[in-house]
Parts: sequence; C-alpha cells; structure tokens
Amino acid sequence: MVQKLTQEERDRHLPALLQAGWQLVDGRDAVKRTFVFKDFNEAFGFMARIALRADKVDHHPEWFNVYNRVEITWSTHDCQGLSQRDLDMIQFCNQVAAPYTP
Amino acid sequence: MVQKLTQEERDRHLPALLQAGWQLVDGRDAVKRTFVFKDFNEAFGFMARIALRADKVDHHPEWFNVYNRVEITWSTHDCQGLSQRDLDMIQFCNQVAAPYTP
Repeated sequence: MVQKLTQEERDRHLPALLQAGWQLVDGRDAVKRTFVFKDFNEAFGFMARIALRADKVDHHPEWFNVYNRVEITWSTHDCQGLSQRDLDMIQFCNQVAAPYTP
Repeated sequence: MVQKLTQEERDRHLPALLQAGWQLVDGRDAVKRTFVFKDFNEAFGFMARIALRADKVDHHPEWFNVYNRVEITWSTHDCQGLSQRDLDMIQFCNQVAAPYTP
C-alpha cells in the first residue's frame, strides 16, 4: 500500500518542486505545473512520453491540454495525497520537458 | 478565413451531436463530450489518434484526461465559435471512440 509522504519527506522535496515551477493545488494534497511548448506537436510529444511511462508504472496524471499548453496535476489516489510515486513522475516530467522549457 | 456555422447549419447538425452525447458549453460557442474508456491505455490511444488528425488538419482540441476519462471540447479560435472544422473533428472523435463506448 502506497503511503503519503511524511512531513520530513515533504520538507526535503517540496521546496525544489516549487522552485521548478510546481504549485500546491488548493483544497487537496496535489501539485500541478503548466508546461508551455512551441506548438501542439511538441506538447503532445511530451504527453506521449509521460503517458508511456505512466502506464508502465501504473501511475497516471490528471492533465489538460490546449494547443501548446499542458497543465499536469499529480496526486496519488490510493493514499489521497502526494507520495513517492508522484515525485518520481514529477522528476520525469521535468526531465522530458527540460529541452523545451526555460 | 473560417466562418462560424450559420443558423441553418446549426439547426441541421446540432441535434445529431446532442443526441450522440455532445453538450453545448455554457458561456461560449463550443461543444464538449466526455468519453469513458476501459482504462488509461484505451483513453490515451483515443487521444493519440485525435492528436495525429488534429495536427494534420491544424485544428486542435481542448481536452482533459484522468485515467480512463477524456473530456474534449471543440470550438474554432479563428471565428470564436463552432465551424465546419469542429464538425469534422467531432465526427472523427465519434468514429474513433465508437468501438469503445456504448
């Protein structure tokens, strides 16, 4: 059973996420970030890479896309909050998007 | 320049869309539908097919996905409302999703 991050883990990891452009979501234990790409092709290319990884590790995003913009939210349904599984996917998102974003 | 649907065209086409599960969006001239699939793999497979067509015809959706659910909205930015381009993509969405949805 996946566990929510402990306070110590949150203190250790969240500052770097916020620094990288992730935001806490109001009213629930989740983080979101908006990625802006050059166009739809780049945006959906990002989504495709995230989707393949997400399905492989069975941990899926909530996301909204319009044209070159992808708003992606991570939280873990099974523990109703942030877990290590979110941190792993967040790191992967940052890595995939890095060549395309400031 | 793409034109908004005329009233005659709306009267001709919208009833079938509403019958097929599309809804008018409050506050703007757009339609949306929620497609529910078996799982994320099916949902993202649908999205991938829509994305390829959308980029080919340069007419892109607004969409939200979480796990097996895809909420997709169509409207045409250039004319600030529904156009034939939306009808074409709506028909393609219905066709791609048909084997997966009731």
